[in-house]
Amino acid sequence: MKELEITAIESPDASTLAPLLIALLEEFGMTLATAESCTGGLVGKLLTDVPGASNVYMGGCITYTNEIKQKLLGVKADTLACHTAVSAPVASEMSDGVRRLLGTDIGVSVTGYAGPGGGTAEHPVGTVFVGISIRGQTEVLELHFPALTRCAVREAAATALLSHLIAKLTENGGADNPMCIN
Amino acid sequence: MKELEITAIESPDASTLAPLLIALLEEFGMTLATAESCTGGLVGKLLTDVPGASNVYMGGCITYTNEIKQKLLGVKADTLACHTAVSAPVASEMSDGVRRLLGTDIGVSVTGYAGPGGGTAEHPVGTVFVGISIRGQTEVLELHFPALTRCAVREAAATALLSHLIAKLTENGGADNPMCIN
Repeated sequence: MKELEITAIESPDASTLAPLLIALLEEFGMTLATAESCTGGLVGKLLTDVPGASNVYMGGCITYTNEIKQKLLGVKADTLACHTAVSAPVASEMSDGVRRLLGTDIGVSVTGYAGPGGGTAEHPVGTVFVGISIRGQTEVLELHFPALTRCAVREAAATALLSHLIAKLTENGGADNPMCIN
Repeated sequence: MKELEITAIESPDASTLAPLLIALLEEFGMTLATAESCTGGLVGKLLTDVPGASNVYMGGCITYTNEIKQKLLGVKADTLACHTAVSAPVASEMSDGVRRLLGTDIGVSVTGYAGPGGGTAEHPVGTVFVGISIRGQTEVLELHFPALTRCAVREAAATALLSHLIAKLTENGGADNPMCIN
């Protein structure tokens, strides 16, 4: 698991990343699904702001409760009990689960404490886990946005997710990326 | 089915309606789920902008393809074939389907042509159907936003959905509304 510390919003705006991601997915002939907890639909909204997103974005699940994470995405009760909903294992199972459920090449997930309430000593408000599952290979990012508001945590998490997926798709210039079809 | 013609965005901003809706649902002890096609997660995002939304908002599905509308929400193949995905019967089945899937009191849905592409002679770009299913009683609104951009159609559809649900919950002052528990 990679860890990324972000304390200020200096990254590109998510609304500029979504069109780039959609274009990359079209180029690679890959499809995407989303599983969102703390962002509650924001990632889907950003993707579908882009005209023609339906060519590559199939849809997703907003899973705001543990029960629905289990029912829709197949997150295991043991994983939730041992690690809580805001954890790397749950982010991993969410991203893999939505990829399988919707039959896409890629599944992504977000689970975190956007605040102002919630959080634990181990994972305070501003902690977010992002999962990226590409054809069975799953990776989780742990993100920390300790100084941001609820709205800004959600925006920053979506931005980090989109930028990281773009980076993965363009590793080694994209052409010889084994995760890509061409 | 009621029909509502909106040609300019003069309605209250969706971001002001979401906190009111969350407060009403808390007051009435009712839970909500969303099924979104053309809004792609925007309604969920607006609801979860509100701190404490998780008390009443359980989650939902973003169903951007016909296949996923069938698989996740139980929309019938015949309904899609006879009426297309942008139709009152599909909006109705989506709202009822997500209510059953997530086990909530209320299910809401949005399906439409946000543009710039898509649309038919019968249902041009800017046509949106909104479904509201409250404990088995389902109602569909047909909305027309002929002069708006993709972004504005989506915002207007979300605004109409939230305001209409608030109106339903506060009919007759709310207290003697048979759809409400108390």
